[in-house]
Amino acid sequence: MKKLINKPEDVVKEALSGMLAAHADLVRVDVEQQLVIRKDVPVQGKVGVISGGGSGHEPMHGGFVGVGMLDAACPGAVFTSPVPDQMLAATQTVNGGAGVLHIVKNYTGDVLNFEMAAELAAAEGIEVASVITNDDVAVQDSLYTAGRRGVGVTVLLEKIVGGLAETKAPLERVASLARKVNDHGRSMGMALTSCTVPTAGKPTFELGEDEMEIGIGIHGEPGRRRVKLASAAEITEMLVAPIVEDLGLKSGEQVLAFVNGMGGTPLIELYVVYDNLQRILKGKNISIARSLVGSYITSLEMAGCSITLLRLDDELLKYWDAPVHTAALRWGM
Amino acid sequence: MKKLINKPEDVVKEALSGMLAAHADLVRVDVEQQLVIRKDVPVQGKVGVISGGGSGHEPMHGGFVGVGMLDAACPGAVFTSPVPDQMLAATQTVNGGAGVLHIVKNYTGDVLNFEMAAELAAAEGIEVASVITNDDVAVQDSLYTAGRRGVGVTVLLEKIVGGLAETKAPLERVASLARKVNDHGRSMGMALTSCTVPTAGKPTFELGEDEMEIGIGIHGEPGRRRVKLASAAEITEMLVAPIVEDLGLKSGEQVLAFVNGMGGTPLIELYVVYDNLQRILKGKNISIARSLVGSYITSLEMAGCSITLLRLDDELLKYWDAPVHTAALRWGM
Repeated sequence: MKKLINKPEDVVKEALSGMLAAHADLVRVDVEQQLVIRKDVPVQGKVGVISGGGSGHEPMHGGFVGVGMLDAACPGAVFTSPVPDQMLAATQTVNGGAGVLHIVKNYTGDVLNFEMAAELAAAEGIEVASVITNDDVAVQDSLYTAGRRGVGVTVLLEKIVGGLAETKAPLERVASLARKVNDHGRSMGMALTSCTVPTAGKPTFELGEDEMEIGIGIHGEPGRRRVKLASAAEITEMLVAPIVEDLGLKSGEQVLAFVNGMGGTPLIELYVVYDNLQRILKGKNISIARSLVGSYITSLEMAGCSITLLRLDDELLKYWDAPVHTAALRWGM
Repeated sequence: MKKLINKPEDVVKEALSGMLAAHADLVRVDVEQQLVIRKDVPVQGKVGVISGGGSGHEPMHGGFVGVGMLDAACPGAVFTSPVPDQMLAATQTVNGGAGVLHIVKNYTGDVLNFEMAAELAAAEGIEVASVITNDDVAVQDSLYTAGRRGVGVTVLLEKIVGGLAETKAPLERVASLARKVNDHGRSMGMALTSCTVPTAGKPTFELGEDEMEIGIGIHGEPGRRRVKLASAAEITEMLVAPIVEDLGLKSGEQVLAFVNGMGGTPLIELYVVYDNLQRILKGKNISIARSLVGSYITSLEMAGCSITLLRLDDELLKYWDAPVHTAALRWGM
């Protein structure tokens, strides 16, 4: 295992300590309890927006904490759900009297633990709404999931919903927009190589030198099929076709197109994929109104990419464009 | 070779086509001649700031084109200098009557070709100044370099000098600030794995499963020594010590601390390195006034990192903080 780490069991806490040191202008970090918290919370009258999940997907979620996006993130151990206590502490900390939205990726552990945290918070009189992201068209059930997995749309949802929450919209409306974003987006990913969980010390799965996995999950869980390595154009087509079909995208519609790196893939390759993507969409007369190219929801050092398409309307565009200031996404301020 | 590409010889042009599609609000791209150009150039009365070099280091330099940073970038083939014609075309295009600054990393091909382009531009009556970055403390001469190599400081220099150029400062002052930034910064890198140049199809060098290369160059050229894999804390110390010594950093000084990923290293590991770095600097009573953590000057999919320290004063701080809007760095707008 070749990694820039010290003890495998210390990776998450040391990375959080590094985040705190690098971004003390934006966030407070409770390294022991593993919480990344927007520096100026609670904001009175604003819905608190929190998310969380296993570590190893950086910058998600800690890198999305700040003005216009998340109020707090609860990172668990690598690829392991955070515990309800973390989520409850985050909920209490960000509650500014207008309630708290939990953004939960659809993995069994995350869903159960966020449910328990929501019940504990409700018992304390904090109003909580939850939205579950399940945008991955690759598989119906999987190793850690009943139903579809939550992947790339989560990034876009946290940005858009964070933008609305900043206007002090009520919890019901913030939750409703969150569900709308999830409904409007679909994703699919692929891997050229496996990743290695630090405490495991060996690759999560094996792929031959001439193989790739189509429909991979963000924890290396199996996808749709293992096939021979193909060109970027062919790979892009394999990812885009099921997304377009599942979303029912039609000629004349506009989307946000997100090409995401899995952690070990360099930017030059992501732009090659984006070039193929824009050609395919142009061929279908689907226009790309906004784009995002980079590694935002990763799987440690896995090489590969995912594509997310989000059907846009004026409301989603407005809150996507709204100012944001986090470690990983920043514009307008 | 596992990469998200089509034909190896088409990677650069396809990535440029993808950049154009993703960032048409910021840049024009001449895919054939391989030029990335700020959309609103020439800006009358503003010094044009250009840079360039081999591809494979993305987002450098194309991702740094925009308001407050570069006016144009000339990417060559992967790890290969662009040609004088590209540089001349960029110089002509960005010249707004106040002259043009060439920012050149110290590699023999880049230096010779930028010299030729500067002569050709001068013959057309365009005033050109050049600054060469040579911040890598690892080795004195190397495979492609007489003297030290230009690495991480180049990123910081392009931001800071671009900030000054935006104020319509004269060429002499812009060039002088560029030389100051180079003088104030030092870097050193390391690799856990090699990279593979697409047209070569095999790794540039071989490293054993328990080995790493300290002092690696950004093209995989040899560093100071090949040693056994060590912890992040030990690696950080190996990189920081020569930088601090060479810069003569003393207790009480303040720096910009830049932890850079080589392309295949995930963000969670970069934050672990940053955590070690901030502890080491705290121990020396050197304060980190600004930081940058991410993959900005890469070597394709190489796993590893580099550290750059830039001694800060009020002038450098001011132009570092100035607004910037490029594909890769954005704040204040």
